[in-house]
Amino acid sequence: MDFSDYFKGRRTVRRYSYKAVPAQLLRDMLDAAMQAPTTGGMQVYSAVVTTRADLKKALAPCHFNQPQVEQSAAVITFCADFNRFVKWCEMSDAVPGYDNFQSFMTAVLDAVIFAQQFNTIAEMNGLGCCYLGTTTYNAEEISRVLDLPKRVVPIVTLTVGYPADESVMTERIPVESVVHWETYKDYSSDDIHAAYAAKEALPINRRYVEENGKSSLAQVFTDVRYTREANEVFSAKFYDFIAKAGFNWNK
Amino acid sequence: MDFSDYFKGRRTVRRYSYKAVPAQLLRDMLDAAMQAPTTGGMQVYSAVVTTRADLKKALAPCHFNQPQVEQSAAVITFCADFNRFVKWCEMSDAVPGYDNFQSFMTAVLDAVIFAQQFNTIAEMNGLGCCYLGTTTYNAEEISRVLDLPKRVVPIVTLTVGYPADESVMTERIPVESVVHWETYKDYSSDDIHAAYAAKEALPINRRYVEENGKSSLAQVFTDVRYTREANEVFSAKFYDFIAKAGFNWNK
Repeated sequence: MDFSDYFKGRRTVRRYSYKAVPAQLLRDMLDAAMQAPTTGGMQVYSAVVTTRADLKKALAPCHFNQPQVEQSAAVITFCADFNRFVKWCEMSDAVPGYDNFQSFMTAVLDAVIFAQQFNTIAEMNGLGCCYLGTTTYNAEEISRVLDLPKRVVPIVTLTVGYPADESVMTERIPVESVVHWETYKDYSSDDIHAAYAAKEALPINRRYVEENGKSSLAQVFTDVRYTREANEVFSAKFYDFIAKAGFNWNK
Repeated sequence: MDFSDYFKGRRTVRRYSYKAVPAQLLRDMLDAAMQAPTTGGMQVYSAVVTTRADLKKALAPCHFNQPQVEQSAAVITFCADFNRFVKWCEMSDAVPGYDNFQSFMTAVLDAVIFAQQFNTIAEMNGLGCCYLGTTTYNAEEISRVLDLPKRVVPIVTLTVGYPADESVMTERIPVESVVHWETYKDYSSDDIHAAYAAKEALPINRRYVEENGKSSLAQVFTDVRYTREANEVFSAKFYDFIAKAGFNWNK
């Protein structure tokens, strides 16, 4: 396999076949993904692999009933996890100071790097995956279904399975609009137009605008997909849950 | 190349040769990395690629003068970036609601997934990389060096270059200590011992304990490497900077 073809051509898979994914394969791929970088070698993350139908069903509403939750072979919830590390400290006569915002961020970065490494390994092994961005929206509900203890916060979820069909590649804005050389050069109106013009012109995106009765693609994001109202509701929920989970925001 | 060997054997590289990394190669690898998943196709991230000696020198103290900052071919700062997206909304008669915590988290996840995909692509192309965990400690200082505008927050930094020597693989705790099947099974004392015993027994880790005059490896983390005092100082700094950057924590 030419790996550069994989990276340039990869696509998210939301529809899975009924073919099971062996537990041993999942374990081996997670094991390989653990070799990804982690802050100070601390590995302040966990992965909860859920394959039981009743548990996937219980998780589904936490992810707004996206069908891939129940249809996938496995739902893997990647968590920021200081529980294991703090228990180790306490058993080792060491006094942990990880109930703060930087520690939470460290664990978030660790969890996401681990998740993305797993995503790449799984896809290179012929599996399909889909991130569920809803994980931070309903972290407390997910936490209840998965019995997460204190100091564990679900951050990203991947559904995993063998692809049922050829999914489509999603468009990206030009790399020149994302990469800044040496320092950041802020965007002029022309730069913004250059970044988004091709995306706006795509038939599928024009259809979204029309179907939603909007006058621009950006309005589909602001008024339909990622609204201020929803963002603020889920911000407050997540903020409160992280504090309950033991990370103090004010120190 | 057998890609599974790469994943199981990958290692972080902190010492680089003087061989330059062509800008075109960096661009092409960043372009490929952009095909990694991103929330709702929003790509709320940027990468600032710094290769100029004077700028790397200015960045070095932000990263506590870790030598790889100045010795690397390129320092790439991956940022959570709602600047470009908000500008697009405003040009498109769309009213953005992205000045909140969930939006910040979305952009963090996007930036880290992008960074880790780049890390993997660069390593598979024979380059070496090292994450600088100091990025969130001194985000405001980095922001000043790189001219980051409002709504842009540096999250992770990678130094990149051709390896100068064979780096060593870092140990990991057993995959059984990280992966939970179906739901989370909290750790007993025996579980914690099983997770960390091999790590504690490694000669290099025993040397760290001794050199630092500590009685356990965990104390090296709590008392030397990641102390409560430092965590709290850098939590407050980062928390304040994110608010200045335009993300409101209280809604």
